[in-house]
Amino acid sequence: MLTIPIEVSARHIHLSQKHADILFGTGYEFTTVKELSQKEQYAYQEKIEIQTEQSFAKAGCEAFTFGKTCDHNLIRYLGPFREQTQIELSWADAYLLGIQAPIKLSGDLEDTPGGLILIGPKGQVRIDTGVIVAQRHIHCNTDKAQKLGLAHGQEVSVRVAEQRGVIFEHVIIRTHPTFQWHMHIDTDEGNASGIPMGGEGEVIITKPT
Amino acid sequence: MLTIPIEVSARHIHLSQKHADILFGTGYEFTTVKELSQKEQYAYQEKIEIQTEQSFAKAGCEAFTFGKTCDHNLIRYLGPFREQTQIELSWADAYLLGIQAPIKLSGDLEDTPGGLILIGPKGQVRIDTGVIVAQRHIHCNTDKAQKLGLAHGQEVSVRVAEQRGVIFEHVIIRTHPTFQWHMHIDTDEGNASGIPMGGEGEVIITKPT
Repeated sequence: MLTIPIEVSARHIHLSQKHADILFGTGYEFTTVKELSQKEQYAYQEKIEIQTEQSFAKAGCEAFTFGKTCDHNLIRYLGPFREQTQIELSWADAYLLGIQAPIKLSGDLEDTPGGLILIGPKGQVRIDTGVIVAQRHIHCNTDKAQKLGLAHGQEVSVRVAEQRGVIFEHVIIRTHPTFQWHMHIDTDEGNASGIPMGGEGEVIITKPT
Repeated sequence: MLTIPIEVSARHIHLSQKHADILFGTGYEFTTVKELSQKEQYAYQEKIEIQTEQSFAKAGCEAFTFGKTCDHNLIRYLGPFREQTQIELSWADAYLLGIQAPIKLSGDLEDTPGGLILIGPKGQVRIDTGVIVAQRHIHCNTDKAQKLGLAHGQEVSVRVAEQRGVIFEHVIIRTHPTFQWHMHIDTDEGNASGIPMGGEGEVIITKPT
């Protein structure tokens, strides 16, 4: 049986340097609270508030005004900087914010919606693109992929054997020399498969698609 | 292929008559907005607010006081009355409310937590038990079950063939002469399988467990 550790990613954001400078001030140094399973990826202590007109209204705050804070709806910030700001939500988050977010692989931001405001201690940014629901995927280093006969972009299935377990189909393999053997799912998927805080799965290799 | 319509149940509540009387006033007549797929089950127009100390704090409302309303965190009320009040949440809802809700079949309220306040237009009720995350299940009338060779309590699997599709394992068959052929999942499960508003599945009958 080919097992894989599964990590549940709560909603989070990757910032461009330009946006980080606006939100936190130029040259601000972020505090790492956790090194993530993938090399040189960090969770920072600093959180950012995300709002839409709908989320402001739902929160019982006053009418939305650019620059006004409601002091909740926080999202975790992961580093390092990326070329483009990317916001990864669950469908449950997207529903609460009133955003129609597509299921996309991380980094594939073509034709993605925006429609939200990021609020940091030093400034605010209106986001017009970059919101996705991350497609579930497996990180696999190139050597392991070769041994297993897995290609970058191939789909496999993964079984989570809990009382509430499921078999996830269409799990995308992503290979890179530095990748660690981990599967990433979002909070909806973690909840639905009985592992809200993460767990373990069994990889079922089907024929390459 | 044996297909089944899948309905996604958002969080909802079934009230005992006693609790309904407190929340809405004795003899209050509820307004039906929708007849549900199962016979003599209704969604009412009236909604109820649910709160915990944690949800009040998160909403940015003032400190929780019994009797105080925050005017959101609404939950749909389904009729008719039941013997005991039952609150069905998704794990995402339960997390936001700060409640550890077990996965249970509807009606099985033994050893279930409470810890929340229901707020209606005429009064409030503190709930000490009856909060569950509903175990996914299929309603099947007795005749159809016999034809398919399915027994009450048997487990089957159900495949949802979407981009984000999954195979749900451990889906419980529930039989009754009045039941309509429908599967019920919660919002976490709907989101995770790519059918946030419902859809269709393929029933895979495994050996009786």
